Amino acid sequence: MKVELHTCLWHDVQAFHFNEKDLDVLRRTLPELNIVTHNNESSFLAQSENADAVLTWEFNADWYQRATNLKWIMTPAAGNDWVEADPTGKVDIFHGTFHGDLLAESLLSALLFMNHRMPEMWRNFSSKGWDRNLQKESRLLKDQTVLIIGYGNIGQVCGRLISQMGTRVIGIARHARANPDDIPVHAATELEKLLPLADHVVLMLPGSTSTDGLLNEQLIRRCKPGVYLYNFGRGNSLRSDDLINSWDHIGGAFLDVTEQEPLPKSSKLWGLDNIMITPHSSCIYASYKQAFLDETIDHLRALLKP
Amino acid sequence: MKVELHTCLWHDVQAFHFNEKDLDVLRRTLPELNIVTHNNESSFLAQSENADAVLTWEFNADWYQRATNLKWIMTPAAGNDWVEADPTGKVDIFHGTFHGDLLAESLLSALLFMNHRMPEMWRNFSSKGWDRNLQKESRLLKDQTVLIIGYGNIGQVCGRLISQMGTRVIGIARHARANPDDIPVHAATELEKLLPLADHVVLMLPGSTSTDGLLNEQLIRRCKPGVYLYNFGRGNSLRSDDLINSWDHIGGAFLDVTEQEPLPKSSKLWGLDNIMITPHSSCIYASYKQAFLDETIDHLRALLKP
Repeated sequence: MKVELHTCLWHDVQAFHFNEKDLDVLRRTLPELNIVTHNNESSFLAQSENADAVLTWEFNADWYQRATNLKWIMTPAAGNDWVEADPTGKVDIFHGTFHGDLLAESLLSALLFMNHRMPEMWRNFSSKGWDRNLQKESRLLKDQTVLIIGYGNIGQVCGRLISQMGTRVIGIARHARANPDDIPVHAATELEKLLPLADHVVLMLPGSTSTDGLLNEQLIRRCKPGVYLYNFGRGNSLRSDDLINSWDHIGGAFLDVTEQEPLPKSSKLWGLDNIMITPHSSCIYASYKQAFLDETIDHLRALLKP
Repeated sequence: MKVELHTCLWHDVQAFHFNEKDLDVLRRTLPELNIVTHNNESSFLAQSENADAVLTWEFNADWYQRATNLKWIMTPAAGNDWVEADPTGKVDIFHGTFHGDLLAESLLSALLFMNHRMPEMWRNFSSKGWDRNLQKESRLLKDQTVLIIGYGNIGQVCGRLISQMGTRVIGIARHARANPDDIPVHAATELEKLLPLADHVVLMLPGSTSTDGLLNEQLIRRCKPGVYLYNFGRGNSLRSDDLINSWDHIGGAFLDVTEQEPLPKSSKLWGLDNIMITPHSSCIYASYKQAFLDETIDHLRALLKP
């Protein structure tokens, strides 16, 4: 019997939009699938009762009652922002777990970008300048300390890559734990104590009401003067106002996510010195879709095993 | 008997300018030295006959005849651009060998900067934009190949750091050789054959007439379309005209050194898309002076050993 797999993988961002051709690898690898692709919500909802499995960016809680055959949802997203849980608990949700490699390179790019004073260097370049003193206070990243707040699976991949540079990495998770990489992972309760040790403080927190405004002005002021801040998790954990109010204390910031997205043109963040803002793009790589499909194939192979 | 050490370490670039305080570590560590500091050439030349050793940025061939006691010259520079050899061969010259760590981080910054489309991302940021498609063709550096042309001591430190990312690194040196890092080092004669394999081509060549215009237009066109080029050696090995003429073939370039330095404001390089130019600053770090002095202390300890 064919297993019916429905896909709802349209997306505004081209790197996240799956077309028919992208799905060929599923057809080739798992011929027992009957794949039905949808390009809008109403098309999916009209046929959702036939779906055994869904690959999707989004799933609302009230969709489950129509999808009576549904057993599995696979979503590329790492965070649980767009797929709501099944109220009856019958459907298993598989989140993408391939983001670590992508995010780690983006974060390392950002660390080296700020550490090497690229905002100033770019301005020097743009004015055809040859100022050889702008980087005179730069220190090697390998001689510094990076604190990662939110040390889950993704944080751990990031920490491993950064520590390979020779850099000291400290992780903060909900609970302290042993870590195979020799990178200490402390409990969230120790945050205030650890902040003054870091030259670079990275937020990698998921979006939830419990992380709202977590790195507030008071905590930012606990950091070393001249610290660089990074947000590569969700925008809610660092409020724009807290950042702006403590700007005199820090060296700069690299934000891949912001409190509101897209960041409004009226935001004062755009005008700060030594800031770089990217449009929630830390996972935008050409390999994104392939990584999700590879993982999906592994899941389906295991689930469909007779 | 006191050993007379003269220093000629003034420099326009602040990270390279040694003041009295910087030299304290020498006084503390090697009390047998009598240190005489000079802040200009004529001051040094007037007293050079007393010098047993000189720490200097520059030494001209005709200075040797006055410096009759001189045994050793230590210079921070890695390249032999500014200290000429003793025509009589009596004086030993020690070049700095500490540049690898500094250059490796600068080069990795540059690789990630170009790979992650930062010139376009910065323009997007500067216009308060939120374009999430600019990076859609980005590939992880770890899935790519970096070719380093000029695989000496510094190139090797760079290669090691880059290959830790998971990236495939290929070195090119004058002669092929075995390498402890599992990074293949090929002979210069194989350059043309290897160029098409690389996603990123890095020049790390010393300045000499034999490297003039080495990566010429014809060779650039042998590279993969969309390749990124980097010059972190000396400007002579990549002529501006060759780069400009082959610009349609490549993805972009990051130049830390240029044919003329400072690069004249009239240069067409400034106006190219996807280029970044830094002012020969790959070794400009706060730790530069300390690294040279640490190395100098090691040399002097060995030389002064009774």
